[in-house]
Amino acid sequence: MAGTKRLPRAVREQQMLDAAVEEFSDTGYSDTSMDAIAARAEISKPMLYLYYGSKDELFMACVDRERGRFMDAMSAGFDPALRQRDQARIVIREFLRYVYENAKSWRVLYRVASSTSDFTEVVTRARSQITEMITELIRRGTTVDGISDTDFELTAVALVGAAEAVADRISEGDISLDAATDVLLGIVWRALTGVGHLEEA
Amino acid sequence: MAGTKRLPRAVREQQMLDAAVEEFSDTGYSDTSMDAIAARAEISKPMLYLYYGSKDELFMACVDRERGRFMDAMSAGFDPALRQRDQARIVIREFLRYVYENAKSWRVLYRVASSTSDFTEVVTRARSQITEMITELIRRGTTVDGISDTDFELTAVALVGAAEAVADRISEGDISLDAATDVLLGIVWRALTGVGHLEEA
Repeated sequence: MAGTKRLPRAVREQQMLDAAVEEFSDTGYSDTSMDAIAARAEISKPMLYLYYGSKDELFMACVDRERGRFMDAMSAGFDPALRQRDQARIVIREFLRYVYENAKSWRVLYRVASSTSDFTEVVTRARSQITEMITELIRRGTTVDGISDTDFELTAVALVGAAEAVADRISEGDISLDAATDVLLGIVWRALTGVGHLEEA
Repeated sequence: MAGTKRLPRAVREQQMLDAAVEEFSDTGYSDTSMDAIAARAEISKPMLYLYYGSKDELFMACVDRERGRFMDAMSAGFDPALRQRDQARIVIREFLRYVYENAKSWRVLYRVASSTSDFTEVVTRARSQITEMITELIRRGTTVDGISDTDFELTAVALVGAAEAVADRISEGDISLDAATDVLLGIVWRALTGVGHLEEA
């Protein structure tokens, strides 16, 4: 630990968050101790408490940082010049790639936060926002009339559910990214033909 | 409360569980008190503790009962004489109907249990069992060669995720059962054609 005192605050914060994401991801919220996080970050527990006042606060900081990373990775895939079909393909690929390459980040955001009563709401809200966005994307890509708002919404709900489930399966690490991307893309294309996206994949 | 003392044990147990399912469903695990459950069941708190030693034990009894009801409702839809496609249609209908008609039961099993650390494992295990069953159903209904085990599994994972998401949306009560069933069935049929179920819906 010699010399760590000279690290700038921002660097040290990131080290603490890195350690916390690892611990929360491996052990879950309630079984993770501030001792374990401090040990992994190679700092003292008082120092950890100085930066983050409580386990709750530290977990919230992890969720915030990982959510930000996730949203950055997703928004990098958006390009208004793309045809909608290519757009969708890229977003699905980027989503699954993010989870594949950042399995612990995903687990903190998805598994740990959604199974921790105080944070379930954060996950639910994020899911609703994404579902609304996807509902709009599907609506705009539809070339036929007569599809109801409910059908657009339910299609988005189902596809977001399918994508979350495949992503979560990928985070276990024993499935190839390409196989998962192909299966999910296949399901999404076929579902979209059901609400009047008439182009076949 | 006059006369409740003469109720047979089995009847009283069901009343307590009914009250507990309502409370847990409305309020979540951590914010539900044994006082509130006793009041709703119209019994004394000591009596509630006599039957169920702790909130944890009472919640587990709720999850067990509701899981049993859910499995009974599902297995009623299985009939080996049916063509596989009709079988799948009936199972999806029965699943969504169960959630529609038993929204509080679903919420205890799904939302509350999965967001309560000690019970997440129960939900995860049930989901794995269902996914394995669906993987086998898909494999048996496939009429072409060359689909990998991973593709079968990932298709099942995606469809179970889609079905859970649609079911959970239904449990909010403002979506028609028929609309949700049609959308989910459409997505499932189309997905199955992707893994060599060649019949079109």
